[in-house]
Amino acid sequence: MQRIALLGAGFIGAVHAANLAAHPDVDFILVYDIDAARAHALAESHRARATADVEAAFDPDAVDAVLIASSSDTHSDHVRRAADAGVAVFCEKPIDVDLRRAADTVWYAAARGTRAMVDFNRRFDRDYAELKRVVDSGEVGNVELIQLSTRGPDMPPLPYIAVSGGQMRDQTVHFFDLARWIAGLDPVEVFATGSTLAEPRLAEYGDVDTSAVTLRLPSGALVQIDSARRTGYGYDERIEVFGSTGMVEARRQRTGSVSRYHAGRVVDDGMHASWFERVKPTYAAALDAFVTALATGQPLSPSLEDGLRAQAIAEAATRSLASGKTEPIES
Amino acid sequence: MQRIALLGAGFIGAVHAANLAAHPDVDFILVYDIDAARAHALAESHRARATADVEAAFDPDAVDAVLIASSSDTHSDHVRRAADAGVAVFCEKPIDVDLRRAADTVWYAAARGTRAMVDFNRRFDRDYAELKRVVDSGEVGNVELIQLSTRGPDMPPLPYIAVSGGQMRDQTVHFFDLARWIAGLDPVEVFATGSTLAEPRLAEYGDVDTSAVTLRLPSGALVQIDSARRTGYGYDERIEVFGSTGMVEARRQRTGSVSRYHAGRVVDDGMHASWFERVKPTYAAALDAFVTALATGQPLSPSLEDGLRAQAIAEAATRSLASGKTEPIES
Amino acid sequence: MQRIALLGAGFIGAVHAANLAAHPDVDFILVYDIDAARAHALAESHRARATADVEAAFDPDAVDAVLIASSSDTHSDHVRRAADAGVAVFCEKPIDVDLRRAADTVWYAAARGTRAMVDFNRRFDRDYAELKRVVDSGEVGNVELIQLSTRGPDMPPLPYIAVSGGQMRDQTVHFFDLARWIAGLDPVEVFATGSTLAEPRLAEYGDVDTSAVTLRLPSGALVQIDSARRTGYGYDERIEVFGSTGMVEARRQRTGSVSRYHAGRVVDDGMHASWFERVKPTYAAALDAFVTALATGQPLSPSLEDGLRAQAIAEAATRSLASGKTEPIES
Amino acid sequence: MQRIALLGAGFIGAVHAANLAAHPDVDFILVYDIDAARAHALAESHRARATADVEAAFDPDAVDAVLIASSSDTHSDHVRRAADAGVAVFCEKPIDVDLRRAADTVWYAAARGTRAMVDFNRRFDRDYAELKRVVDSGEVGNVELIQLSTRGPDMPPLPYIAVSGGQMRDQTVHFFDLARWIAGLDPVEVFATGSTLAEPRLAEYGDVDTSAVTLRLPSGALVQIDSARRTGYGYDERIEVFGSTGMVEARRQRTGSVSRYHAGRVVDDGMHASWFERVKPTYAAALDAFVTALATGQPLSPSLEDGLRAQAIAEAATRSLASGKTEPIES
Repeated sequence: MQRIALLGAGFIGAVHAANLAAHPDVDFILVYDIDAARAHALAESHRARATADVEAAFDPDAVDAVLIASSSDTHSDHVRRAADAGVAVFCEKPIDVDLRRAADTVWYAAARGTRAMVDFNRRFDRDYAELKRVVDSGEVGNVELIQLSTRGPDMPPLPYIAVSGGQMRDQTVHFFDLARWIAGLDPVEVFATGSTLAEPRLAEYGDVDTSAVTLRLPSGALVQIDSARRTGYGYDERIEVFGSTGMVEARRQRTGSVSRYHAGRVVDDGMHASWFERVKPTYAAALDAFVTALATGQPLSPSLEDGLRAQAIAEAATRSLASGKTEPIES
Repeated sequence: MQRIALLGAGFIGAVHAANLAAHPDVDFILVYDIDAARAHALAESHRARATADVEAAFDPDAVDAVLIASSSDTHSDHVRRAADAGVAVFCEKPIDVDLRRAADTVWYAAARGTRAMVDFNRRFDRDYAELKRVVDSGEVGNVELIQLSTRGPDMPPLPYIAVSGGQMRDQTVHFFDLARWIAGLDPVEVFATGSTLAEPRLAEYGDVDTSAVTLRLPSGALVQIDSARRTGYGYDERIEVFGSTGMVEARRQRTGSVSRYHAGRVVDDGMHASWFERVKPTYAAALDAFVTALATGQPLSPSLEDGLRAQAIAEAATRSLASGKTEPIES
Repeated sequence: MQRIALLGAGFIGAVHAANLAAHPDVDFILVYDIDAARAHALAESHRARATADVEAAFDPDAVDAVLIASSSDTHSDHVRRAADAGVAVFCEKPIDVDLRRAADTVWYAAARGTRAMVDFNRRFDRDYAELKRVVDSGEVGNVELIQLSTRGPDMPPLPYIAVSGGQMRDQTVHFFDLARWIAGLDPVEVFATGSTLAEPRLAEYGDVDTSAVTLRLPSGALVQIDSARRTGYGYDERIEVFGSTGMVEARRQRTGSVSRYHAGRVVDDGMHASWFERVKPTYAAALDAFVTALATGQPLSPSLEDGLRAQAIAEAATRSLASGKTEPIES
Repeated sequence: MQRIALLGAGFIGAVHAANLAAHPDVDFILVYDIDAARAHALAESHRARATADVEAAFDPDAVDAVLIASSSDTHSDHVRRAADAGVAVFCEKPIDVDLRRAADTVWYAAARGTRAMVDFNRRFDRDYAELKRVVDSGEVGNVELIQLSTRGPDMPPLPYIAVSGGQMRDQTVHFFDLARWIAGLDPVEVFATGSTLAEPRLAEYGDVDTSAVTLRLPSGALVQIDSARRTGYGYDERIEVFGSTGMVEARRQRTGSVSRYHAGRVVDDGMHASWFERVKPTYAAALDAFVTALATGQPLSPSLEDGLRAQAIAEAATRSLASGKTEPIES
């Protein structure tokens, strides 16, 4: 049994809490939040204990791992505390809103041999994992072109957008991770262009709601990503990998398999109404991978370094949006 | 070049005329119809010659084959004339509206070594031919269950129904042929039941518009066929073959590949509006098979015997509709 | 909170135990099984209490409802005990292996005003519920033809088959229920025919492994059901409802949405490997409906009477398999 | 009847010849080719006349229109001759391999009121025409993102590539046309990047075989196009239009509708083996549109100007491939 403390009792914290409580190999012992009442309420509903003392979460005698789901500006500090305490880490992205500080934290943790995993949960999506297996098996040959779509149903509130870091860092970053994971390579340059078609006021934040990104991999393979903040038809994501001998696609997922036949048209079930409906199972799957790796001593993946790499792409893409030019990606 | 004379200038005659005119290895020389004006008009539009003398169509010095697309009550007589003349035959179903006379005609032609083919054109549908190849290859193992649907968009006019012989003989017969062709076996008994749901007046003719048929093959394999005279969504047919190691399906065909995504639903292109839209290419394909077999001397298939067998199933099914019992099928 | 006692700690009992433990409005208090050790083990893994005294499960002061998942020959007795005690009932099918006794039990419970539901869990399948909504909305007009397929991946062991009552009672019965539920009508007669294609030794039990059933509804609408005990391609079920103005289909479900493109073929994810993978979510959904109806006082559905009706169809179908004739269905 | 002369008897000339011969409203009178024997052979097989005198094709007393399917370097000259003669023009792309000369020719023809159409035949694809209708109807709202894929099965021979003008001008140009047609707007700038993954020797020609293009429309809408010269799975093209209220997709087309079910996988029919199999019907459809517009006096579309616009995008994209920068598109 892994004894796990949860940091952060907001929306994502609650998602993790339910998964921690349901996992047969997890002893969900503690919830911390800067809002003590919120921590208390979440802990109670899952028969866990709440604490107002963050130090309790890093007590190596009581805790095997912390799950960091607090606000982004606290991640780095929590990771360092865990590193100091010798406690394992499961961390929501980003490691730090600032790429330099994120890098420092990653090296800090690495220097202390910290067992750590970043929650790029989409890697644990059933279809994406299968797509990755197909690619790795060589069934489609060498990767030559990867296409990814990420399209949310509803424009997030402007106050959220204002502190989100922009579309690349907030939304597209998951797909930067998927692209480099699938390819097994880090992209070397990026071109990004975007528009404010759904919400013109985004321009005030230097942000976009609709964008097209092109990455170049060192092999010459290309990646195209489109990101949209608001669709008229629900939550939509898909991935296609074009290889030298074949192609593999993780198709758009529908909510069901019912078809209605009428004159001249067939009406099928549509897309999920929200991103959470679509990706909910991946949170439990990612947690399970973390717990299993802790128990077996196998490497944790995706690592904090993976978190850093995806963030570096997002930074370069954000620069490209502003410059209108291809930008190199820091390695 | 095969010199071919067309008997019958009605709707199906016109379909055949266009295919005869377009076929590079056919010399479309003659059109006969009891309505001379109709023969003339059709011949003219395809640069063929019309005749009011049916004997001209059976002149072995001028004609290699006749394509019999005249009214059903004339088929038998035309086949016998062709047999007498030593001219090859491509005959629309049925060979005769009366099963006994049809059998006599088939033996008559066989005794004279007549090269003859019955126009069960659906065997030449691209998808059905592929399904047959899959079954014959053993890819799905032994055939255990075949399911076929045949559903027309619109109720035929009552005067047509009155002389059609009923749903089994007129509509389902094509699928009796497909079932025995796919299985490579002749069914031994049939249970059929039906209702008049679309057109109550059919009851006056002892006919049905919606029916369920079950056939038993000598291997113990079963066949289910549903037939409907009127859908609300266009023309619909499909086949599914369940085997001991897998299953193969020729899916419903849509008119196109466009999908429209809206909140909660995806709207795809629908079914064909008419049976003819759906099966049109099979007429040309069947004719091409006939012409090719004539040229190469290979066996003609489906044979007149095949026509007879499907008709025998339709007769037994019609009896079952009336008796409410399982009926044996004459072999 | 509904206080629920579980009767039966076998495979299905364990499925229900997990759902009972996870349901937020259920107090999962007790597990009884004739095998006390099995009851104990299951109870412990869900923090419930085990009992060797079946009476404890029918204590109206401690228990609001019993979930009957014990062996089929005990269902009737448990239902009557619950009726006597005034405790609600959630009962696995069948109510009794003998139709007469089942009917007596249903009337016994009805006479005592027992709140009871039979676990025809497939009604709670997301797609089947949506299909039912479409039919009830009138979107496809009057129901004219219903087609259902039920095909298991693997032949059950012969000892299981020997006591199962045969394919109609054991496998097809769920689809008899679905057919009458979708149509909103009770079928009046049935024709069934079958073969032993997968396992010839079934003939010793008077059973079949591959069968075709045709039901007639009082409206004249028809139902076709095919049942197979062993496929070569996984677990397969589907439903199609043909109406007077359209058609609606709950398609075969696949395990995922990944497509692999190769020369001449596209390889998609296949079917579920087992029936349980496919229908697992329906157990939780059915339980949730039971708990919600208990809490709100709304009618429980499907009722014990529904269980009886489906069983009556299975009895008539079993007679038809033996007689080779259409058999009337008792109402 | 439109009297049409064909210029060019190569592969595409032969395609047009068959369509001209089969069209009921066309009098296919003449074939010219610089290779007189080739002209003769093609004319003969379609009962047309061949000529070695190109002037005969521009005789306004004998010819209503010319169909220009000769080598690209002759198109401009043929268009001008037709303009001088007052004969209508149906011209394969490009109008001229040089954009300046092409523009001059377009103005030359416009000044003479020449009735002319450029053969962007994909606009007449059944699915693309339907997609365009959906977009124009407003069903998906304002166009915000268009994605197009164009992927050929086999690397063209190097000698062909050497004179083709490169991937943008030769392959992608059809999709530049589709993008601006669908959007109803001319893109203002383009970013293109590519690699030589299938055929390294392309680098010697400054060409690429795998490329990603991003266009920006004046509305802020974006277009992503991927082009590949060699797939491992057949010929592949698709279009997706993301709008403000919905999305519409013309899906990849398969060769048939047969599905084979095996354990863990479903194998469907694949893609077309060649581009010609896929787009063949669009040649006849484009010709039919030309002939119909001539007969009715309606505007011809796509116009020579449309040809010019697509070519201008291809020029800018080619510059971007070399510069690595976003390039403006001449208007």
